[in-house]
Amino acid sequence: MDVIEVIVAKRDGHELTAAQIDWVIDAYTRGEVADEQMSALAMAILLNGMNRREIAGWTQAMIRSGERMDWSALDRPTADKHSTGGVGDKITLPLAPLVAACGAYVPQLSGRGLGHTGGTLDKLESIPGWRASLSNDEMLAVLRSAGAVVCAAGSGLAPADKKLYALRDVTGTVESIPLIASSIMSKKIAEGTGSLVLDVKVGSGAFMKTVERARELAETMVALGTDAGVRTVALLTAMDRPLGRAVGNALEVEESVEVLAGGGPSDVVDLTVRLAREMLEAAGISGKDPADALRDGSAMDSWRRMIGAQGGDPDAVLPRAAETMTVEAPLSGVLGRLDAYAVGLAAWRLGAGRARKEDPVSFGAGITLHAKPGDLVREGQPLMTLHADETVRFERALAALEGGYEVGPTGQELLPLVIERVTA
Amino acid sequence: MDVIEVIVAKRDGHELTAAQIDWVIDAYTRGEVADEQMSALAMAILLNGMNRREIAGWTQAMIRSGERMDWSALDRPTADKHSTGGVGDKITLPLAPLVAACGAYVPQLSGRGLGHTGGTLDKLESIPGWRASLSNDEMLAVLRSAGAVVCAAGSGLAPADKKLYALRDVTGTVESIPLIASSIMSKKIAEGTGSLVLDVKVGSGAFMKTVERARELAETMVALGTDAGVRTVALLTAMDRPLGRAVGNALEVEESVEVLAGGGPSDVVDLTVRLAREMLEAAGISGKDPADALRDGSAMDSWRRMIGAQGGDPDAVLPRAAETMTVEAPLSGVLGRLDAYAVGLAAWRLGAGRARKEDPVSFGAGITLHAKPGDLVREGQPLMTLHADETVRFERALAALEGGYEVGPTGQELLPLVIERVTA
Repeated sequence: MDVIEVIVAKRDGHELTAAQIDWVIDAYTRGEVADEQMSALAMAILLNGMNRREIAGWTQAMIRSGERMDWSALDRPTADKHSTGGVGDKITLPLAPLVAACGAYVPQLSGRGLGHTGGTLDKLESIPGWRASLSNDEMLAVLRSAGAVVCAAGSGLAPADKKLYALRDVTGTVESIPLIASSIMSKKIAEGTGSLVLDVKVGSGAFMKTVERARELAETMVALGTDAGVRTVALLTAMDRPLGRAVGNALEVEESVEVLAGGGPSDVVDLTVRLAREMLEAAGISGKDPADALRDGSAMDSWRRMIGAQGGDPDAVLPRAAETMTVEAPLSGVLGRLDAYAVGLAAWRLGAGRARKEDPVSFGAGITLHAKPGDLVREGQPLMTLHADETVRFERALAALEGGYEVGPTGQELLPLVIERVTA
Repeated sequence: MDVIEVIVAKRDGHELTAAQIDWVIDAYTRGEVADEQMSALAMAILLNGMNRREIAGWTQAMIRSGERMDWSALDRPTADKHSTGGVGDKITLPLAPLVAACGAYVPQLSGRGLGHTGGTLDKLESIPGWRASLSNDEMLAVLRSAGAVVCAAGSGLAPADKKLYALRDVTGTVESIPLIASSIMSKKIAEGTGSLVLDVKVGSGAFMKTVERARELAETMVALGTDAGVRTVALLTAMDRPLGRAVGNALEVEESVEVLAGGGPSDVVDLTVRLAREMLEAAGISGKDPADALRDGSAMDSWRRMIGAQGGDPDAVLPRAAETMTVEAPLSGVLGRLDAYAVGLAAWRLGAGRARKEDPVSFGAGITLHAKPGDLVREGQPLMTLHADETVRFERALAALEGGYEVGPTGQELLPLVIERVTA
């Protein structure tokens, strides 16, 4: 097989054969196909697309590039959730223990943040002692004791995807639905979950800016999961404004604990409960209402076991940023718009996210929102508090927020929290 | 400037700014932009195109990446020719001394062959003692003494193009008119010629398979040359069948010497004379008929001085391949078709060309054609002779020729030798 033939076929708009896809993924993983060849192919795929058969073959080839986990020895069904990423999206933190409390095992492999959306592992690492890296045996032990485990994907899982993702990140080839769908689903299928709920975010703070693009991604991923024997369903959910009132690592852990304690912002609670119901249904578990498990403390118990089993102290005081700054309402009226991307970018500039993979994050940095879109505010009232380790960061964060919120005499239209449900 | 922004702009169909183009070419030459980023950009350019302004900027940026030669101190006008490459295309060999004999200086930087079309330097290197590498001072000395010089481009000329060309070759991004045009013209403009005639080949043995694509390339290059102050004209010429009767390095030198001696195949003579007239006109030289200079021996004199000045012996016996094999006409009739690509591929497999840059070529290998399309042939009459250093090569060459020629009761339509003339 010749890599140039494969590139030229896709460049000229042809369908890649199963043999071409298998070969190119394998040869790229082994280093026989060079980065500059794969990036040219990725650009050709981004611009000319892949059909469902090609995407399925691409996904399967990436799964075969590494190990595949197997939870079939467990005595309960497994369920997992994946979010395409958003601002203030800490849902995994209350959701995993909540679903575990309702009777499913939740084995979740997560990632770190890059850019304006935070990573689940970064958030959990703000808990003193908690560690993200577990062996397969440790992962199984945490799962048995707590019912849920959130940890870093080992290097053995879909190594082709890891290599390709890093390449796409630096070559302008990220925004391709076939490549996004196959990247997510190769990891989730290799992870071995029996059922999967996808939270596909839509709006300025999300990867998918429109409902149409989000629906296309959701349909592609649901088909991939279903074909691979994973019961898969997707929700399109709002990311035109941040989720909840906390954006930043430790700040989001605190908000998650509030939700597990039966409180917390209503959008976070509503989405957590809705996703939990979807996961339980996909896992075939009935008769349990997740809302009860938040009220009766069983979800919190599961959280404490899960954090403790990975070395974390659930009672520890979380890191706080040294400096704060308040942003006030410029006039009285309705907070009409609070742009998710602007808030995410500001939090990132405050230190909550990283510019390069090897950068550290500040656990305490971020933003606390005192008002959400639709709320009435009075001139001078605090709209949000910025948190950072150095005051020098505030100026650039304020620049990111400029034009990102609006107070006026009338409200503005927002996306519904759950926009649409996509099934096979 | 951020390379991902530049890639994404072209990926999304936008026009690149002059600043973006200047920066990306410079940063790539310096190694700041990586190969995998440039190949993604090249694929985006191939699929989304560049307009005339972008192509001009791209070409100028590549010229600025290195030195620019200057022949303004010479006492005669300079003229050069560039061919996009074809099978049996040895025209530079008789043409350069012919135009010199008519009063222009011909400073020609040439390349080596890769794939099924031969390289001018490979052909000349079959002359014992001849060397392709000259310093700028040596080049000037040969030009003054012989009127023409054909040598290898030094590494200082458009280094950005050299790096990009090698990358495109392995990433399926060769067939882009903006990238082909800017690659050719950056070298020719940096070479410093005052006038330039482009021989854009059309047909199976050429890079451009259709007249439409060839015309687009020709128009693009003529505009680039004209804008840079080089008097530029292009001819679209036939490459559906091989040019002349010899394909291979030493074989083509022999045929070129026949033309310089006043003989040779009529298509080679006709195209050489036509291109010489175009070059003289572009250089502003009138009153000289190149056909006379072939007849009166002055072109041959110039050839002998040119070869001698670069260490070659114009009287030396040229290398011959050890083995030959004859291909006979399968029946009596008209040779209707003799496919240029098939013949070029067969010659390449016989050893005349190289598969990788570092491979040597066989000087004696190639094909002698005993009949050209339109000729009457009798069953069993030799159609061509294959030349190779080892008999083992004949089988693969014959496979390349299979279906590449046809003898039948009627002739077939061929492209006219000169299809079209393109001016600014």
